[in-house]
Amino acid sequence: MRTDRPRLMDIALLHYPVVNKRGETIGSAVTNLDLHDLARAGRTYGIDTCWIVTPYDEQRKLARRIISHWTDGYGGKVNPDRREALSILRICSDLDEVLAGCVARWGKRPRVLATCASPRPNTRSYETVREQVRRDEPHLLLFGTAWGLSPEVMAGVDATLPPLKGRGEYNHLSVRSAVAIILDRLLAER
Amino acid sequence: MRTDRPRLMDIALLHYPVVNKRGETIGSAVTNLDLHDLARAGRTYGIDTCWIVTPYDEQRKLARRIISHWTDGYGGKVNPDRREALSILRICSDLDEVLAGCVARWGKRPRVLATCASPRPNTRSYETVREQVRRDEPHLLLFGTAWGLSPEVMAGVDATLPPLKGRGEYNHLSVRSAVAIILDRLLAER
Repeated sequence: MRTDRPRLMDIALLHYPVVNKRGETIGSAVTNLDLHDLARAGRTYGIDTCWIVTPYDEQRKLARRIISHWTDGYGGKVNPDRREALSILRICSDLDEVLAGCVARWGKRPRVLATCASPRPNTRSYETVREQVRRDEPHLLLFGTAWGLSPEVMAGVDATLPPLKGRGEYNHLSVRSAVAIILDRLLAER
Repeated sequence: MRTDRPRLMDIALLHYPVVNKRGETIGSAVTNLDLHDLARAGRTYGIDTCWIVTPYDEQRKLARRIISHWTDGYGGKVNPDRREALSILRICSDLDEVLAGCVARWGKRPRVLATCASPRPNTRSYETVREQVRRDEPHLLLFGTAWGLSPEVMAGVDATLPPLKGRGEYNHLSVRSAVAIILDRLLAER
């Protein structure tokens, strides 16, 4: 069904470790609509795999059940486009598992980039990353739920994409919106 | 609280008249997450007003109750950023009411642009519209829920934005993702 070769790019949505509004490390809940919106955006922009990361066994079971309704069940029969989108989702427990999955497909560790709503040192521009992806260098983009990725995750990445700048100081996009915009900036055909 | 002057741009999310997968004209239901995601993206990119359009009285009441929780109620107390976002939402019955609201603020009718996942005649490029918005020409962007805006709405607009092109033929973004990407293309600071 899929005729285009995916980019050497994965994204991962982390539900742990992320921070709450007080900056404390927490685990957040998987939500149905994140799965759909990220899968649809990911498939539209031709990424390889969208990882849904949670250490909670019950949450992984729930996510797998939702996905299977669309990939193997009734949902996919009545809406094949949605089946194609949700088939790029993979559920796993932690970031190590994501990286192992990337290495298994690509033969090398991807460059790991964090996304963050606040300015950071060690940023890499959207143009630079866009060019690197076009040259088939493998990339993994990390997105945090709740109030964003925890400091320990941020400390372990290779670089960070600049915050999305709209107009003025306000930037409180949903993670669904941030994923869509960043994929468009990095991967849209021009 | 808001220090930047909004752009002369509104967006409207139509729940009627839109089409279902068979191309029949239907009315769709307002969803909570559309309100939040569109408000957050709209506020981040500095639009003036995000209109939520439905002819169904009960749906308008529900939407107003959700918004008021965040603008006047407990939600806004614990999350002032969300209050600021949802305060750009306005609920109304039809497109005529949207246009009257635009004219009341801007003194002239805005250019009305449709968004559509399929190619159309009479498209206007993102760069062109971006430049027109920078010159303070007023614009109203229409987005359809379900399978998109009905033919009668499409026939009445001044022009259409090109479909968002990712990689390959697949483009089935959620309306939340499409709004976020289009606002980024038209309004992001560069």
